Amino acid sequence: MKRDLRDCQVTVVGLGLMGSSLAGALRGRCRSVVGVARRPEALQAARERGLVDRATSDLAEGLHGADVAVLATPVRAILQQLPAIGLLLAPGCLLMDLGSTKAEIVAAMAALPEGIQPLGGHPMCGKEISGLEAADPGLYRGCTFILSPLPRTSADAVALGSALARAAGAAPLILAPERQDFLVATMSHLPYLLACSLVATADATTSPDPAAWQIVAGGFRDTSRVAGSDVTMMLDILFTNREEVLRAVDAFGSQLSRLAGLLAAGDEDGLRQALETTRQKRREMFP
Amino acid sequence: MKRDLRDCQVTVVGLGLMGSSLAGALRGRCRSVVGVARRPEALQAARERGLVDRATSDLAEGLHGADVAVLATPVRAILQQLPAIGLLLAPGCLLMDLGSTKAEIVAAMAALPEGIQPLGGHPMCGKEISGLEAADPGLYRGCTFILSPLPRTSADAVALGSALARAAGAAPLILAPERQDFLVATMSHLPYLLACSLVATADATTSPDPAAWQIVAGGFRDTSRVAGSDVTMMLDILFTNREEVLRAVDAFGSQLSRLAGLLAAGDEDGLRQALETTRQKRREMFP
Repeated sequence: MKRDLRDCQVTVVGLGLMGSSLAGALRGRCRSVVGVARRPEALQAARERGLVDRATSDLAEGLHGADVAVLATPVRAILQQLPAIGLLLAPGCLLMDLGSTKAEIVAAMAALPEGIQPLGGHPMCGKEISGLEAADPGLYRGCTFILSPLPRTSADAVALGSALARAAGAAPLILAPERQDFLVATMSHLPYLLACSLVATADATTSPDPAAWQIVAGGFRDTSRVAGSDVTMMLDILFTNREEVLRAVDAFGSQLSRLAGLLAAGDEDGLRQALETTRQKRREMFP
Repeated sequence: MKRDLRDCQVTVVGLGLMGSSLAGALRGRCRSVVGVARRPEALQAARERGLVDRATSDLAEGLHGADVAVLATPVRAILQQLPAIGLLLAPGCLLMDLGSTKAEIVAAMAALPEGIQPLGGHPMCGKEISGLEAADPGLYRGCTFILSPLPRTSADAVALGSALARAAGAAPLILAPERQDFLVATMSHLPYLLACSLVATADATTSPDPAAWQIVAGGFRDTSRVAGSDVTMMLDILFTNREEVLRAVDAFGSQLSRLAGLLAAGDEDGLRQALETTRQKRREMFP
């Protein structure tokens, strides 16, 4: 396999927000960037915006000559595509993905033909707007890019995947798939369900009053932001990380009940202590 | 009472984020802005930053000559201060506040001396950083400024209060105190408890893993932002709106259980429909 990203043809399969932004970030930092998408408008837009060197709707054509292939479709589409893509890649090719859950994908990658170097990937960035229209080559800048190698993945392949992450401006972080799925359930998938539940609560209780939407302020806006995420993408994530997500929801329920219980009981000292602790914790997380 | 804000001395009691930002926004749009605060550093900073025409730690001195007094302290400080302040104001003075809950404050305002014009107020803006250091005269721009008049409040007083809101760049909205407390419980106080519970969940479950904080991304950051709010201010809000807040927490719990239940049951169509509905709803709220 090639060791220097600058010598590589990188083929990105799927030109939604994540794929097209990565393509744009890598263009000029590798030999060529090829984009694969079904919609002709996406192909044309990717070309017009200069996010790719070449774009095609033909998967075989797009993967031909690829040194690195990056699957940037929703998680269950990746799971479906993997066997076919495995047959289209040349030996020595690095095959990565950008899916938000890793255990099922990495398990499916284990069945790929021997010559291929598989590497699970999950960049911790995004936007609540989806699609190529929202493409931003700076999207990956400063984010953590989780990499989940398989036992069969070579050190060279991990190094090339790390170089790709860095070329996009991200910081690679090696994590085993189960550990990553456990962590992102709380740090990423739980916030999504909370945001959706908050919007649903307002819709069910206060929305008959037209003033509800006039008084909505920054707190509600930020807390509910990720409820705008693409539903197909999120369903794939939730259903391929179901046990961890449900555990995180339970843990959250306990914490909310604890705070509400202190309020209901009039335990002001207890509530103050709990709120000061979380405030301090959040300040450590986001200094 | 004076009818034109430009002829008024406005005294702002409390120079935290909300009070000092309002002072800065009003300065130059009324005859003079006087700031009252306990901490000498706050007085000096307010003067140095040009947020006030005059600043004092003496409540009586600050309220002397005031045509409009604005109480910008936490809710329960307002409740404590009201009787004393009522005795210091001249007849015809407009007395407003900026507290986030209105039923208890407006009830206390009913006991003020007859000549005073009371008007509950709640501007729907803020920041997760507190204190005069975070003062921003543009903070009120574009926000809704809820006004809760009492039966005794004259039309002139409501008009002057509305003019003050507009002078700060905000849009006044008249709401009865109980209706405002019901609405903000869901639109503002609930998001705070969710943000705190999310941080507490991460702290309790994932934080033993150092990678947890490396992978934290925009979704978690935004969903948890208001957990950084000032705890004393938030405790006052929660305890003076306890019943409505606990009702909102219950309603939220039902919505979260519903979504988690669909996920646990593998009801993908049902979950898709629920998530698409909230996504659509949020887009209507924040176009």
